[in-house]
Amino acid sequence: MMYFTCGPTQLYPTVNDHIKYALTNDILSISHRDMQFMQIYERLENNLKQIFKLPSDFHVFFLSSSLEAMEKIIQNCVNKYSFHFVNGDFSKKFYTTALELQKIAKKIEVAPGHGFKNIAKIKIPRKVELICFTHNETSTGVETKFRDIYKIKKIYPDKLIAVDIVSSAPNPIIDFSKIDLAFFSVQKGFGLPSGLSILFANQKAIDESIYLQKNGINIGSHHNFPSLLQKSIKFQTPETPNVLNFYLLQKVTEDMMKKGIDRIRKETEQKSKIIYNYFYKHKQFKPFVINKDWQSKTTIAINTGNETKKIIKRLRKNKIIVSNGYGQFRNMQIRIANFPVHTLIGVKKLLNLI
Amino acid sequence: MMYFTCGPTQLYPTVNDHIKYALTNDILSISHRDMQFMQIYERLENNLKQIFKLPSDFHVFFLSSSLEAMEKIIQNCVNKYSFHFVNGDFSKKFYTTALELQKIAKKIEVAPGHGFKNIAKIKIPRKVELICFTHNETSTGVETKFRDIYKIKKIYPDKLIAVDIVSSAPNPIIDFSKIDLAFFSVQKGFGLPSGLSILFANQKAIDESIYLQKNGINIGSHHNFPSLLQKSIKFQTPETPNVLNFYLLQKVTEDMMKKGIDRIRKETEQKSKIIYNYFYKHKQFKPFVINKDWQSKTTIAINTGNETKKIIKRLRKNKIIVSNGYGQFRNMQIRIANFPVHTLIGVKKLLNLI
Repeated sequence: MMYFTCGPTQLYPTVNDHIKYALTNDILSISHRDMQFMQIYERLENNLKQIFKLPSDFHVFFLSSSLEAMEKIIQNCVNKYSFHFVNGDFSKKFYTTALELQKIAKKIEVAPGHGFKNIAKIKIPRKVELICFTHNETSTGVETKFRDIYKIKKIYPDKLIAVDIVSSAPNPIIDFSKIDLAFFSVQKGFGLPSGLSILFANQKAIDESIYLQKNGINIGSHHNFPSLLQKSIKFQTPETPNVLNFYLLQKVTEDMMKKGIDRIRKETEQKSKIIYNYFYKHKQFKPFVINKDWQSKTTIAINTGNETKKIIKRLRKNKIIVSNGYGQFRNMQIRIANFPVHTLIGVKKLLNLI
Repeated sequence: MMYFTCGPTQLYPTVNDHIKYALTNDILSISHRDMQFMQIYERLENNLKQIFKLPSDFHVFFLSSSLEAMEKIIQNCVNKYSFHFVNGDFSKKFYTTALELQKIAKKIEVAPGHGFKNIAKIKIPRKVELICFTHNETSTGVETKFRDIYKIKKIYPDKLIAVDIVSSAPNPIIDFSKIDLAFFSVQKGFGLPSGLSILFANQKAIDESIYLQKNGINIGSHHNFPSLLQKSIKFQTPETPNVLNFYLLQKVTEDMMKKGIDRIRKETEQKSKIIYNYFYKHKQFKPFVINKDWQSKTTIAINTGNETKKIIKRLRKNKIIVSNGYGQFRNMQIRIANFPVHTLIGVKKLLNLI
């Protein structure tokens, strides 16, 4: 089978061998407090810093899922007010997370398939402490360009900016001097088994959590920023973590760096063009997102209407799995993932079957 | 190598083959919203209900670590007051978790290596909502007998009782009608890779979280009990979980049930007797825990004093890894795990080398 699903997805081709190596060499039995684990942690951290070109004031934290990352960001960076750009189910989840944590969360919301027009004109209340973006809204395949996110940072330089890059990393080239937090999970762009999430947070975000804690605000206990920082300095985590995924991500980031991240990004661009061009010309099935500026490069939603089930069945017969539409679009769209693991040959085979 | 470490530990012997099957059959690429995952979830839940003989009012939740379980229990079951039986670093962690979450946490604390005498005489303040026990204190190898925990429940039937069974499950036979919550991680007694934790919570505990939520108490967002319950009914988790570990735990619980949980428990008893008897007779090295009622069956601490490093080195040369003492005992104790994965032959080999 070849999984073109939006995550979990096809495993990166080297994962199989890395798991077998881990089994043979007892990596799943080592202590998370011992040197061998700390070396894996340190190498992984360095790889991520290189791939994402993280400035020196950024810290790398390891969590279990992106939903957990949303919770920890809100708890540690917001006393009262957050603001959310909502254009689908995952950006809405960030917003409802803030509400559940009893923050005063405000949002601007646009219809599914849409992005944010004239973003610089959107008014964000003065008291807002944290602004939350979803770079790639997996539910609808809508991208919010980083240049638009930077515009907001320029207008509101004192507010923290958090960006969900769950289903786009490592594709976007990000100027981290213009955002404060970003997070993703490994079962998407990195082609790993699920169960590990990465959070980048700069010193300003950490300082905010320390400030809140000192002022008696509840920033949570497990995985609050000060506790993550304290352990990360020693290349450890507060809890016994998912050691297998630490090892696999260390190895797969190395494999990707050997291939070249720029080359991987170019291939992603190229494959996405081929996919969109194919559906532009298709008589029946068109991309859900019409505005080209908003079209996701990595999770592409196609209107397939009444044919949806039939297409999914035909692809499956030919050993290709794609994702259904999300939520309300379940029976009228397919979503095609375009991650580093997906080859040009695979994409062409998929398109030929539609 | 043979890992007699207190977790992560030696993998259960069937894990290797189960991982290879998972790789060959794309189990790491399936969607956590699809039938195939839901079937794994349902089977796993049923296995756990059988192994632990859970009453019908208990729910099974899946978290990422036992530290996360501590946080979620405090958040969802305590408005203001918790009480903690502290006799080592992990029971203390449960206590400090409550403090970090801004609860009024009270404790009774005894010295390392000690348990709680005349437990029925310990006064617990009237306002306390949740009482927290650590059945097996991994840091020192001290067990708190369930018969003592039941005594507390009998005296305080209205208060919730949570029990950390992290490093003893599945060994203790638990009368779940006399406790309300219990949790453990899979990298100890179940011999799995780390990154998954199991929480049993009864309806009374869930009702408490719903009551707190309705009354405007912050019970967290990610993995709060109502959200876990809502998804668990559909055999799903709120987030993309550690699918590999769900699959492995489903398979390993089946392997254990085939062997017989009672037989596994008998072997655990037998091995622990052999280990303690060996050190009773040893001229130099004695069990750290003197009171037999308090001696852990599953993580056994031995005073090895100045010889500690030498013993660990000699064992390692002979392909056996044991744990250091924990915290302040790092350089003066070894800890020997006695989990289902550890064979009688392995135990004898270990002891002969000391």
